[in-house]
Amino acid sequence: MKVAIIGVGLIGGSFAKDVKRIYPAAELYGFDANEAHLKKALDLGLIDKKTNYDGLAIMDMVLLAIPVDVLVKELPKILDAAGEDTVVFDAGSTKTLICKVVENHSKRRNFLACHPIAGTEFSGPEAAIENLYDGKTNIICEVEKTAFKLQEKALQLFQAMGMRIRYMNAEAHDKHIAYVSHLSHISSFMLGKTVIEKEKNERDIFDMAGSGFESTVRLAKSSPAMWTPIFEQNKDNVIETLAEYIQNLEHFKKMIEKNDFEGVYSEMNNTNKIKQILNGIPLTK
Amino acid sequence: MKVAIIGVGLIGGSFAKDVKRIYPAAELYGFDANEAHLKKALDLGLIDKKTNYDGLAIMDMVLLAIPVDVLVKELPKILDAAGEDTVVFDAGSTKTLICKVVENHSKRRNFLACHPIAGTEFSGPEAAIENLYDGKTNIICEVEKTAFKLQEKALQLFQAMGMRIRYMNAEAHDKHIAYVSHLSHISSFMLGKTVIEKEKNERDIFDMAGSGFESTVRLAKSSPAMWTPIFEQNKDNVIETLAEYIQNLEHFKKMIEKNDFEGVYSEMNNTNKIKQILNGIPLTK
Repeated sequence: MKVAIIGVGLIGGSFAKDVKRIYPAAELYGFDANEAHLKKALDLGLIDKKTNYDGLAIMDMVLLAIPVDVLVKELPKILDAAGEDTVVFDAGSTKTLICKVVENHSKRRNFLACHPIAGTEFSGPEAAIENLYDGKTNIICEVEKTAFKLQEKALQLFQAMGMRIRYMNAEAHDKHIAYVSHLSHISSFMLGKTVIEKEKNERDIFDMAGSGFESTVRLAKSSPAMWTPIFEQNKDNVIETLAEYIQNLEHFKKMIEKNDFEGVYSEMNNTNKIKQILNGIPLTK
Repeated sequence: MKVAIIGVGLIGGSFAKDVKRIYPAAELYGFDANEAHLKKALDLGLIDKKTNYDGLAIMDMVLLAIPVDVLVKELPKILDAAGEDTVVFDAGSTKTLICKVVENHSKRRNFLACHPIAGTEFSGPEAAIENLYDGKTNIICEVEKTAFKLQEKALQLFQAMGMRIRYMNAEAHDKHIAYVSHLSHISSFMLGKTVIEKEKNERDIFDMAGSGFESTVRLAKSSPAMWTPIFEQNKDNVIETLAEYIQNLEHFKKMIEKNDFEGVYSEMNNTNKIKQILNGIPLTK
């Protein structure tokens, strides 16, 4: 089996590690605009060889794990270069625009639109870890547009990697992911910004930071190059979720201002049910 | 050595575990308005015996680990009951009002105002863990108002528990902690609320939640009974930090609306320095 990884960072590199474990005989090819990353990926043994557009026709699978702005430009070219039996799938955090740019492509049937909900706040080939995808959800969009045999080939690997598969249309994906992923990143970045701004005048403030602060600002370590195009492509949904979040914060602030601490208690108490939700217990509506 | 723990929950119970390890001969007494918690703490071996106000005069140390609204009511009574050589210290997340309620108390010299920056999102005696305080910061306020010998007794224990000591005035404590702790809790609670509200209409949204979401909403599992009085006592600082946070979010939203994605990138890039900050590397100003 020949697998090409386009973008040998955290996502691509971790994927490569799993492929090697599941198919020890697999040949792994890397393709990356960043020569230093490519060299590092070779050194770390994430990939066996370099490749380029001309090398893609012989691949069984091609994973695109690159920022979504580059993805929408590269995907049509990658499909052009793919072989008849190559399945090309992506790992982009947005889905609508990605599906749109190839809707009329002659090799649309070779493409499977994927979003594995996995990652860490780190990036680059050194950040790649084994079993990153184990137990994680992989959202697949417009599955009916992919050739059945090619779907099967990809799904077999995803299942062997331990992923749970969920099917969804691209618009629903982008709307929902804005709440459970994109908003978390913005809330975290702005929390970091607020505290850093304060620290300019009040030194030693971070000496007081505990594990709670660390947990809520963890995502503020994420890569701006990856996240800026995500917010751009999912602009309308991100604005909507941000507006709701700001409204909830304003309401909480007003309750404190008006000394409505029964209201403050009740808001927090209602939100405590996030415990059960995160444990996967269905909510009583 | 005789030590009384008033409030045998996560904070008091974890403290008790460390005292037992450091001073195996210590006798640990518990005092709690919640009889079930007290029984549980006895069953778990966190404390050896129950006690009450009348029992406090013989104690070497008394820790108050109760919600800050109860703390301001109990602290004067506890000091009344304390012996000449008893050092009474607290673990409250606010410091100004707590110091104020005892400023003219005849036994003010027996009190050491403390805030160990440690905890988890869980509560109750079952949540108590060993070494919770190891490597954590303990902020001590108005240290000059405590009898030197009693300071020494408490500090010896704190150091044996592995805590880093920082001295601060109560107003500075309350101002800074609003940024690095109170704001994190509100941002997390409101993030949880925003997503739960959406989920009412859009089922299965949590199926898409990854570890990033889990990390940013972790604090939304915290106890409302503990946090409501903290926000009440630190009302002015909390309102100020919340206003700055909301303003930063509004600004970020406006940049997205105006398609200023260079600005979006630059905001995130500047905030990335939180990596070094969290690693304890001093910022270049």
